[in-house]
Amino acid sequence: MERAFQAQIERPDSPSRFVVVCEHASNFFPEPWGNLGLTPEQQVAHIAWDPGALPVARALAGLLDAPFVHAPISRLIYDLNRPPNAASAMPARSEVHDIPGNSVIDATERLNRTRAVYVPFHQDLSRLIAERLAGGIAPVLVTMHTFTPIFHGQPRAVEVGLIHDSDPDFTHCVAEAAQAQSHYQVQVNEPYSAQDGVTHMLAMHATPYGLPHVMVEIRNDLVATADTQKQAAEWLASALTAALGLYDSRKGHDSCPSS
Amino acid sequence: MERAFQAQIERPDSPSRFVVVCEHASNFFPEPWGNLGLTPEQQVAHIAWDPGALPVARALAGLLDAPFVHAPISRLIYDLNRPPNAASAMPARSEVHDIPGNSVIDATERLNRTRAVYVPFHQDLSRLIAERLAGGIAPVLVTMHTFTPIFHGQPRAVEVGLIHDSDPDFTHCVAEAAQAQSHYQVQVNEPYSAQDGVTHMLAMHATPYGLPHVMVEIRNDLVATADTQKQAAEWLASALTAALGLYDSRKGHDSCPSS
Repeated sequence: MERAFQAQIERPDSPSRFVVVCEHASNFFPEPWGNLGLTPEQQVAHIAWDPGALPVARALAGLLDAPFVHAPISRLIYDLNRPPNAASAMPARSEVHDIPGNSVIDATERLNRTRAVYVPFHQDLSRLIAERLAGGIAPVLVTMHTFTPIFHGQPRAVEVGLIHDSDPDFTHCVAEAAQAQSHYQVQVNEPYSAQDGVTHMLAMHATPYGLPHVMVEIRNDLVATADTQKQAAEWLASALTAALGLYDSRKGHDSCPSS
Repeated sequence: MERAFQAQIERPDSPSRFVVVCEHASNFFPEPWGNLGLTPEQQVAHIAWDPGALPVARALAGLLDAPFVHAPISRLIYDLNRPPNAASAMPARSEVHDIPGNSVIDATERLNRTRAVYVPFHQDLSRLIAERLAGGIAPVLVTMHTFTPIFHGQPRAVEVGLIHDSDPDFTHCVAEAAQAQSHYQVQVNEPYSAQDGVTHMLAMHATPYGLPHVMVEIRNDLVATADTQKQAAEWLASALTAALGLYDSRKGHDSCPSS
């Protein structure tokens, strides 16, 4: 039996409706893959994980008293926000960097990584959501990402992106609440959107149940220190709480979506 | 640790693109729930399972040399085609029948059944699909159901219904191929459709990956004998194979959908 890298779950029994997820939380490179031939600098760069996302997401989940589900290993070994048939799940190149350990991924290796990383993480997350639905809690999925300020040599002006899968409603409520607080420059479906294949986790876990959801993308230079991470988490906790109030009042319900 | 009722999986390693599923295959009423207070007649009626669906689906999967994933216990204990927050997952009443053992389902019992039946089945099915995607096979999901000829006293004229989740393309190809063979009277999204909440399995396992899919509903009086079950399976195998040819030629691909 090969190793299985389970999801890291904090506060699983919290009664909060929010569930905070961070698929790109980790730059851990465990055996049997090791560092994939990357330099130390590459192992701490945005290609390996989303810098700042873990501390912001952890603080946010704490402020919301919400379950927090995060990745145990680097996205370059398996990107948990991509399906097993996507080349970008185990990319041979990321932005301007070749990934030596991913230059040749045959079917056996693709299957091995899928079994070891993708399947256990998504099973753990789907169990958590199913159990909450059964227990009468309608989850609100919030996934926390950061993006690089310079991509392929081009600076990105957007500070915070709010991205949705097929149902935009909750994300629009977050944008409305966030813009009212005017702390960051916020845009919906920037710097990319579901059409770029970046909402796989939401498509797997929110959309089939009709759950309100948002993918939060913060430019990583804005969450590079403990102080700015704390500020971002506080701003987000406030915006998300206000957004859920807006969403519920407009939907006319505050309990489980029924089927 | 409570019991877990795993999915029944036949032919898991077949290289076929088709994956045949049957969520309402079984009228087994195991402990700790037992027969839920149902009469012997009710335990073999359409409320307990889809009569005829298991033999047709098994024969179909055999003809297609496809993996076959089916439910281990009655839909009245847990309906695997419904989410854990749906009242219809553990219905207190089904068509004109009260279900005594489901008259009061508290949060603990809902959670117990979700953990024992829903979570293991969907984890097994999702693992099978993820592994096939990793292995370079783009699955085509076919779920086999039957419906009762008389519902709430009204006869149903439709013989075969073909129902899709959000992407209608493959289902329309099946309808085109099926109607060319004119063996049954076939209609799309009859006797019900995704809007009735009957496509949960497809929403969980096909739609997030953009997989071609169809839910086949055959009126159960047409598959009441071994002979008619065999005929239905042969007709379906032929129609589905032709439909996949149509679908691939129109999509311009015959391998995995890429992301």
